[in-house]
Amino acid sequence: MITPKNFQSIIMTLQEFWAGQGCLIWQPYYTQVGAGTMNPATFLRVLGPEPWNVGYVEPTIRPDDGRYGENPNRMQMHYQFQVILKPDPGNPQEIFLKSLEALGIDPRQHDFRFVEDNWESPALGAWGLGWEVWLDGQEITQFTYFQQAGGFALDPVSVEITYGLDRIAIALQQVNSFREIQWSPSLTDGDVNLQAEQEHSKYYFEVADVERLRQMYDLFEAEANACLESGLVLPAHDYVLKCSHTFNVLDSRGAVGVTERQALFGRMRDLSRRAAQAYLEQRQGLEYPWLEGEETSQQPPANSQPVTAYRQQPTAYGQGRAPFLLEIGTEELPAGDLETALGQLRERLPGMLEELRLTHGAVNIQGTPRRLVVYIEELAAWQEEFEQVIKGPPAERGFGPDGAPTKAAEGFARSKGVELADLEVRELDGGRYVTATVRQAGRATPEVLAEVLPGLVAGLKFDKSMRWNSSNVFFSRPVRWLLALYGAGDTSEVVPFEFAGLIAGDTTRGLRFLEPHQRSIRSPKEYFEFLRSQGILLDGVERRERIQEQISRLAEQVGGTIPEDAALLAEVMDLVEAPTALLGSFDPAYLKLPREVLISVMKKHQRYFPIVSRSPSEHASEQTLMPYFIAVRNGDAEWLELVTDGNEHVIRARFADADFFVRDDLKRPLEAFLPRLNTLIFQVKLGSMLDKAKRIEALVGDLSPQLGLSAEERGAAIRAAALCKADLATKMVVEMTSLQGQMGRYYALRSGEPASVAQAIYDHYLPRFAGDHSSGSKAGLAVGIADRLDTLTGLFAADLAPSGNKDPFAQRRAALGLVQNLLDWDLDIDLRSGIGAAATHLPILASPESQQAVLAFIVERLRNVLLEQGRHYDVVEAVLAAQGVFPARAARAAERLEGWTKRPDWNTILPAYARCVRITRDLQERYPVSEADFAEPAERELYEALVKAEGTPRASGSVEGFLEAFLPMIPAVNRFFETVLVMADDLRLRQNRLGLLQRIAALAGGAADLSCLEGF
Amino acid sequence: MITPKNFQSIIMTLQEFWAGQGCLIWQPYYTQVGAGTMNPATFLRVLGPEPWNVGYVEPTIRPDDGRYGENPNRMQMHYQFQVILKPDPGNPQEIFLKSLEALGIDPRQHDFRFVEDNWESPALGAWGLGWEVWLDGQEITQFTYFQQAGGFALDPVSVEITYGLDRIAIALQQVNSFREIQWSPSLTDGDVNLQAEQEHSKYYFEVADVERLRQMYDLFEAEANACLESGLVLPAHDYVLKCSHTFNVLDSRGAVGVTERQALFGRMRDLSRRAAQAYLEQRQGLEYPWLEGEETSQQPPANSQPVTAYRQQPTAYGQGRAPFLLEIGTEELPAGDLETALGQLRERLPGMLEELRLTHGAVNIQGTPRRLVVYIEELAAWQEEFEQVIKGPPAERGFGPDGAPTKAAEGFARSKGVELADLEVRELDGGRYVTATVRQAGRATPEVLAEVLPGLVAGLKFDKSMRWNSSNVFFSRPVRWLLALYGAGDTSEVVPFEFAGLIAGDTTRGLRFLEPHQRSIRSPKEYFEFLRSQGILLDGVERRERIQEQISRLAEQVGGTIPEDAALLAEVMDLVEAPTALLGSFDPAYLKLPREVLISVMKKHQRYFPIVSRSPSEHASEQTLMPYFIAVRNGDAEWLELVTDGNEHVIRARFADADFFVRDDLKRPLEAFLPRLNTLIFQVKLGSMLDKAKRIEALVGDLSPQLGLSAEERGAAIRAAALCKADLATKMVVEMTSLQGQMGRYYALRSGEPASVAQAIYDHYLPRFAGDHSSGSKAGLAVGIADRLDTLTGLFAADLAPSGNKDPFAQRRAALGLVQNLLDWDLDIDLRSGIGAAATHLPILASPESQQAVLAFIVERLRNVLLEQGRHYDVVEAVLAAQGVFPARAARAAERLEGWTKRPDWNTILPAYARCVRITRDLQERYPVSEADFAEPAERELYEALVKAEGTPRASGSVEGFLEAFLPMIPAVNRFFETVLVMADDLRLRQNRLGLLQRIAALAGGAADLSCLEGF
Repeated sequence: MITPKNFQSIIMTLQEFWAGQGCLIWQPYYTQVGAGTMNPATFLRVLGPEPWNVGYVEPTIRPDDGRYGENPNRMQMHYQFQVILKPDPGNPQEIFLKSLEALGIDPRQHDFRFVEDNWESPALGAWGLGWEVWLDGQEITQFTYFQQAGGFALDPVSVEITYGLDRIAIALQQVNSFREIQWSPSLTDGDVNLQAEQEHSKYYFEVADVERLRQMYDLFEAEANACLESGLVLPAHDYVLKCSHTFNVLDSRGAVGVTERQALFGRMRDLSRRAAQAYLEQRQGLEYPWLEGEETSQQPPANSQPVTAYRQQPTAYGQGRAPFLLEIGTEELPAGDLETALGQLRERLPGMLEELRLTHGAVNIQGTPRRLVVYIEELAAWQEEFEQVIKGPPAERGFGPDGAPTKAAEGFARSKGVELADLEVRELDGGRYVTATVRQAGRATPEVLAEVLPGLVAGLKFDKSMRWNSSNVFFSRPVRWLLALYGAGDTSEVVPFEFAGLIAGDTTRGLRFLEPHQRSIRSPKEYFEFLRSQGILLDGVERRERIQEQISRLAEQVGGTIPEDAALLAEVMDLVEAPTALLGSFDPAYLKLPREVLISVMKKHQRYFPIVSRSPSEHASEQTLMPYFIAVRNGDAEWLELVTDGNEHVIRARFADADFFVRDDLKRPLEAFLPRLNTLIFQVKLGSMLDKAKRIEALVGDLSPQLGLSAEERGAAIRAAALCKADLATKMVVEMTSLQGQMGRYYALRSGEPASVAQAIYDHYLPRFAGDHSSGSKAGLAVGIADRLDTLTGLFAADLAPSGNKDPFAQRRAALGLVQNLLDWDLDIDLRSGIGAAATHLPILASPESQQAVLAFIVERLRNVLLEQGRHYDVVEAVLAAQGVFPARAARAAERLEGWTKRPDWNTILPAYARCVRITRDLQERYPVSEADFAEPAERELYEALVKAEGTPRASGSVEGFLEAFLPMIPAVNRFFETVLVMADDLRLRQNRLGLLQRIAALAGGAADLSCLEGF
Repeated sequence: MITPKNFQSIIMTLQEFWAGQGCLIWQPYYTQVGAGTMNPATFLRVLGPEPWNVGYVEPTIRPDDGRYGENPNRMQMHYQFQVILKPDPGNPQEIFLKSLEALGIDPRQHDFRFVEDNWESPALGAWGLGWEVWLDGQEITQFTYFQQAGGFALDPVSVEITYGLDRIAIALQQVNSFREIQWSPSLTDGDVNLQAEQEHSKYYFEVADVERLRQMYDLFEAEANACLESGLVLPAHDYVLKCSHTFNVLDSRGAVGVTERQALFGRMRDLSRRAAQAYLEQRQGLEYPWLEGEETSQQPPANSQPVTAYRQQPTAYGQGRAPFLLEIGTEELPAGDLETALGQLRERLPGMLEELRLTHGAVNIQGTPRRLVVYIEELAAWQEEFEQVIKGPPAERGFGPDGAPTKAAEGFARSKGVELADLEVRELDGGRYVTATVRQAGRATPEVLAEVLPGLVAGLKFDKSMRWNSSNVFFSRPVRWLLALYGAGDTSEVVPFEFAGLIAGDTTRGLRFLEPHQRSIRSPKEYFEFLRSQGILLDGVERRERIQEQISRLAEQVGGTIPEDAALLAEVMDLVEAPTALLGSFDPAYLKLPREVLISVMKKHQRYFPIVSRSPSEHASEQTLMPYFIAVRNGDAEWLELVTDGNEHVIRARFADADFFVRDDLKRPLEAFLPRLNTLIFQVKLGSMLDKAKRIEALVGDLSPQLGLSAEERGAAIRAAALCKADLATKMVVEMTSLQGQMGRYYALRSGEPASVAQAIYDHYLPRFAGDHSSGSKAGLAVGIADRLDTLTGLFAADLAPSGNKDPFAQRRAALGLVQNLLDWDLDIDLRSGIGAAATHLPILASPESQQAVLAFIVERLRNVLLEQGRHYDVVEAVLAAQGVFPARAARAAERLEGWTKRPDWNTILPAYARCVRITRDLQERYPVSEADFAEPAERELYEALVKAEGTPRASGSVEGFLEAFLPMIPAVNRFFETVLVMADDLRLRQNRLGLLQRIAALAGGAADLSCLEGF
């Protein structure tokens, strides 16, 4: 066994390796950067058309990752090795894996995974798609196809490979922590960097002066602007980097609120964009000096053949049938994209074959992260003949009065390639037309497929797709090979269609790292056998079952079971081609951490299955967590112990991290975090999160009568309001925002707060997402409503209402949560007065117009909710017009009204009421009714019915109540209109009658505006 | 021929090389640094006792070196490779040279030189001694033995090697500019860095906002302080670096004045010191973990033998004679130190030999930068015998009354090792004592020398000396070998004395890079032959003559001659062991640059001899400069063309730089630089240099009557005053401050100013150093006086008077220049009124006390000048007490008074005057003299003599005038005292007589206070 490379040798080896690949070897940047990407050798050089291949070390600084040197692999400074390949060399993954072999990593002994990771830098206006590369569960490299930088689409796309050198060294040297990494033959990483970790962590978390850092930020920004005004790209970029680092320090001090963050990112992004633009103009001005001699490399691969010249003759199968196999070989597809693609293929294939007039047997569509496979059994070798009637000129213009064909008919026949004599006149589309019947002979299937397959592949759509090479096609991830084979054995032939610069052939690839890497295929049978020989399970269902079976067995080994989690299982099955589950353990001491934290870490970060004890328990959430996890590797069971070791190392580091946060947070009671909320700006005009919490507290007091809180609930709500945002300043929540509320509850309990308060803190965030449940406690409900009313009223007052697609503060979500809570709790609170109360606590003026806008915005969400519940749009309209400000009541009303509209006698009810309304609704004046002025019996009768209806007790806003009251009046209404002339000449009579009808129309007031209904 | 390494290969090769030498390979630092030294891997790691060996690239940023990418090798960013070896490995120069060979540099083909360079970082409180390493005249590396960092003495000392990678690449690839350096196989340094040079230069010189940078500086400093208060070393150090870079940017904007610079450096130094201290405490607290297992390496070399056990027996030469050769082998000594050492050896050797009772023939002492050689002919092989009388107890205590020796005598005899009977009583020191006569037999010369030679070497003193290894001895540069040989041929023997951890042997070393590197020597003859065979000229005189002859011949080849410059010749002769002169040329276009600039650059930067045309000219300063230079290489004439090429490249870059400055400066008239003086702070309380110039202008107006300026002179002086500091803002002067005034004159003439104004600008700086001449023009004189009065009065008012050794603003120099000018021009200006006038223009109050202090300070300098002129101290005292405020007059008076004191009749003059003064000087009151009250004739006689003397016309302050007037009074004075009782009982008579004497005493007023004279 060779001595594992020390840290400096790793670096030197990578330098040599990439220099050997034609990369320029560059140096780390001279200002603190959060990633090698920020070095201008990446950020700027990826812009524009010129080729650029570079590799360099980058010690990167992420203040937030400081752990005082205590975490095994999380540090405020870590060492990256950054590689940019522009343009895509066609096999960057393979080159990258070769570099790992150069470092002495035998890929057969490990589990390598390319796990979806979509990278984005808000400060740089940059994004790309790619993966985290996992080595036995550990992220060791970020691999990204850069799509955009500085807001500019990149052409060509750059491949960015960012090695995490510390983690690679930990794996390579099989040590437990960065501190033990042998840096040189005599010193460790701990020797040379531990002190720095301890000190910088302390600086970033405890010492850095927020006020001074804000001033620095402003100064840096001003210099960046000054540089840009003078056309200085690099100096401007330097200052953007300084802004970014300063921002990060502020952030680690917990001094940046959500909205301030957005604003600062926006400003940095703007600067980056301008720097990028200036750089592009510079290079253009220089006429792209590095493009020289590069033109030729943009041409298609040398072994390509002209696809268009494809022959037109039968296959070996003549008019018979044979199987067709299509494999689209890709770099690792994200799980979601794999399912999306398979779904689209399943949907489109049959229709496509029908359109092509190709009869076929079963169509099988399956796939793994690295291949999408279409296998069609018994596919006809030749298209069916095709006959089509084509419409020509109208008959009277096609044939003269003498029945002889005109010039028009002649032209038509010629253009369709039929004899003049074969033209026929037919009845079509309600007229008589000259028609031609065209017969199209079939063509050989391979020829037809070669034409349509490019469209089929190109037609696959993904949520996020990317470009990678000069073909500039879009796909989920790069397509790297195409196999298309018609037939089997010696009689099979390749269908050489072209896509993304590739020509389809007969070659497939096996499981990564297993020999042979490539294999020529002569038949589907051979193909499926080859995959199986490599352990690849093409069928997702089979993979899922295999995994389910393996993980259940492993859980049983330790006397545990795995809580059902279909989503996780579905994801894991799509992350591997050849699943092998493994059981890992972790230090039981970590079990003292909050359960949600452990589970979140395992599932979210690592896609591990947690294990709980098998003792039956009422609630899944109360089953005892066991100190084990199950991971699913890609590959066979060889070297599984090594892989397990690696995964255990990862979870150890992850839990150590969580433990670090929680322990630190627990040093003080939850309440003690409140002062730090003051440095967390909610929004500049609206003050800090502490200000916000105080407003929520006051607003809860205002609202508690309306919400009908008991004295106890009121007390809990007010205390919870005061504490509800405190956990935002805790390290654990800063780290995993998704735990907000959960940690608040946990810390509150540990701080000795009453259970009701703790629960309300948790509850006030509910619902957190579509489909989540509403607050479980009334105190939590109160806090949540107050929070959301404050957010919405405040932001609208600050002129920050969402517009178009932009909703950076998630106000739609807030309004929706508000509505959902009110509906679920069926609480008739008056939004208008709630908004008004919220407005009184704001530090700025909320104008009546802005309050009205908030109301309309919430009602709009309510409308959507009701529509999603299936209410008919006119019913919703009618109800909201009358009582949108009472969401719960409005919902009930809509339900009832919809019920009424479905009654058989609805067509007698609505018209009767409508007549009363229609004749009066345009009147400006309201007329009194005088019994003395009744001239007809029908008038009096109607009046008496009205008085009775008005006297019927009913709940305010109740549609039911209104309609039940109105129903008995209908005969009187009808009689009235039959016998009485409303618009009498006598003004007094007329006004008296109109007044009567006005009072009837008013009956529906506050319940529904029935004029919105269909049929009104 | 192998392909020269590209830039990235150079870096990778050095990494590999130094890793192979046991260095840890580190990374560039993540904040802008002006040198690799600032990376904590140097600045902090050199502190304390732990070993540390490291190598790393450091891209260093020096804003001031920005040249918009136009200079061949001067850039705002250059690449260093930094190596620290701690402790000294014993042969760091040789390891370093091996690394150059690893890069493919054949040292035989080049001229390598270690040129004295004493490094200091004012911001880091660090300094060291060492060299610039020159490759064909080009500085390619800085090689330093670190003595101090953060204000702490280093133990062990670290060796710091800082490669200038760009320059090495230029030499290696034989290209003309950094732009052409091949960085990778496909791209050049220009490709990847030119844009950065252009943009950053523009940023640093034109765009950076001074006000914002000042704010940044303050914020960084405050954060550094906060970090130190929390004990955070590394974060504090980071901010010191940020301060330093910000300072550099401010400096490149010309925004830092001399005094502000001092203040800022002081503050940064203080921060560095505290960071260093905290680091030291940290490592101590950790108990120096890296010391483990290193203890043994501190022991002497393995081949050492116990020197103390040296034998005591005759040499092969018995009582005869033989030559002795001592060679102290060193790393390259600075020229000055070489001469100092030779001088000391020449002075001490004869005395030492005499003390040792070693007779000898000629003592020859010679040396080169690498060796100090003592060669003694005919040195006795054995000491002469020695007899000494030693004083014992007094005779009466040594022998009893019975003449028998006492116990005391017995003890004395025993202690001196003589028989009791041999004691003698002798008269000694005025008493009778017991004495013993001790005879000391001689010892063998090698034994004796082995004892004294360590002291001889250790006793050599240098202006600046250094430590380098654990012996902690001080020397000019490290001593690396010792050769000490007594005798010749087979009968010779080594004198194995020990110094600096070395044992003397019989091995010498030859000329660097010539084979053999080492050579065993058996006799002086062999030694001298060996040196001569390598071309080494041991004798400085011979080297000088050889050089003189070579350079004269080369100058003649191009029809020129070399202006005599003994200092340069003396320096050059001590920079080489084997001188070979070479002739280089430069582009004649550069001759349009000011002559002083070209000469300064050649001599000061490169130690080149300039060549002027041989046409005879009155003034040397007017001879035409020719486009050639002569350099003197160390070594023979092989590959001389390559060496010449290299040197020409260097001077091209240097001149290009000067040309860049001058061209840029000439873009605007001199006057246009005035506004920039406003950003150059003279001193915070005293405003900018522009403020100062305005004050000088006003003060020149005030002083011009006193100075007796003509209207023309006054006009020129006032204009010159306005412009006198303008050149400080020019690039050329910012670059070479020594050209201030010279460039001012040049630019003034080029700007169309009158010649008198231009000359006055130059003159106002005169005298610039001790021995320099005073201002040549009266206008320049006026400006210079006003400038100095303003400086002194202002700084004293700002409470910044020099104290102790501290004189950061060179106020002593200013006062001295003021005095020298006044003396040379013999101008009777009144300092008090001058200071008063200066005070009126200051922005702050100059209190009467501070003005008085300025006056006293200037008079103190005057005192020194007069004393240095050889005036007797009492004369000086007497004159200054009376008229120090008029320096020129005081100087004249002192001269005259000293003349008088040497007259034969002085002993009659002084006493006569003294009697008058002594009797009256303590009186508080001044009495009137009334003729009516004279009681004796002698009174009247004296009175008449007085009146006559008082009436004698004399120049104010004239000692001559006073004494000539007083001389005739002497008989009357004497008669008066003989016949008149001054202290008569009658009060009226007494007071009248005292009044008379008071008037006589007053005669000397304003000329001298004779009571200060000896004999008064």
